[in-house]
Amino acid sequence: MYGKTIDQLIDALRILPGVGIKSAQRMALQLLEKDRLAAHKLADAISEAATKVGKCSQCRTLTEHEFCDICSNPARTDAQLCVVESPADLFAIEQAGGFRGKYFVLLGHLSPIDGVGPEQLGIDSLINRLQSKSVTELILATNLTVEGEATAHFIADKAKSLGVQVSRIAYGVPMGGELEYVDGGTLNLALQSRKII
Amino acid sequence: MYGKTIDQLIDALRILPGVGIKSAQRMALQLLEKDRLAAHKLADAISEAATKVGKCSQCRTLTEHEFCDICSNPARTDAQLCVVESPADLFAIEQAGGFRGKYFVLLGHLSPIDGVGPEQLGIDSLINRLQSKSVTELILATNLTVEGEATAHFIADKAKSLGVQVSRIAYGVPMGGELEYVDGGTLNLALQSRKII
Repeated sequence: MYGKTIDQLIDALRILPGVGIKSAQRMALQLLEKDRLAAHKLADAISEAATKVGKCSQCRTLTEHEFCDICSNPARTDAQLCVVESPADLFAIEQAGGFRGKYFVLLGHLSPIDGVGPEQLGIDSLINRLQSKSVTELILATNLTVEGEATAHFIADKAKSLGVQVSRIAYGVPMGGELEYVDGGTLNLALQSRKII
Repeated sequence: MYGKTIDQLIDALRILPGVGIKSAQRMALQLLEKDRLAAHKLADAISEAATKVGKCSQCRTLTEHEFCDICSNPARTDAQLCVVESPADLFAIEQAGGFRGKYFVLLGHLSPIDGVGPEQLGIDSLINRLQSKSVTELILATNLTVEGEATAHFIADKAKSLGVQVSRIAYGVPMGGELEYVDGGTLNLALQSRKII
């Protein structure tokens, strides 16, 4: 109804996460009403990133180089390897700033119904890396969902059979969390995982 | 911190309305993680729209043709002309479906502090249109903000001096609105604008 070109733009904008039809309309009109130069800059930035950015050959995170900044940083230890589902998870841990090891990014989780098996997650290359003996601890930081747990179990089995120590990040009440407002699932988990002090 | 190309993409995405740094990061990573083809399609759609879409020569709304669909529709009457601030406002009225006249889009409102005067809003071309005598009623549908009201007053003065009947859309309690939840400003306005029944 806005004309072919604008309708196409609205449609294309809807691939962005969290953008429904109303937001896409608002975005399209504002892009065209305000600053055409910024619109062209956005188009160029998307197309450049979609062309240039690939996967790190070692950890599979998004990077425009052969190896990402973390894999090519000699100050990071190879002894601890942290497995995450997505680059966003990797960046979240990096921003927290408490981890000095390296990462392996699955780019998904096991989900047979969607055709995602061990091959799609690069489990072979993870196992190769574990066999190289430089890794002493494998830290599983997949999400606490059914798929994330299944993926963690699958990788843990493989890693243990190679004699690598495997750990899972702790789940419980978040820092500053008031018990009153924490959901029941998390509370049960925190009780089950209690520590003797 | 995500590498130069991805950081540039995150920066560029922030020109979209309602997109802050966190949403931009999520959008950038998801665009690159999921479907590269869709990312290229989005880039092409933005660049095509930014190149092709211009202003309607008559009403100043966004269109890829010389005249927009509404201006070139012979079934719409020239007698009623509705003045709105933006193409989004025009589309909102169109979707409501109750207006069969034509539009004039200001693409903004009077705002001397931002350098927006009558020239930037195309008031000259609006006056030319009113002088052509085809318009019998000018409906002012600018927003109920300080700037929108000032703009409406300014245009009303000009139009009245040309002998054109001028009206302002009604403001009051919205349909289905429960008085209890309507803000005080709107309630006062609804009381002031009460109608004898």
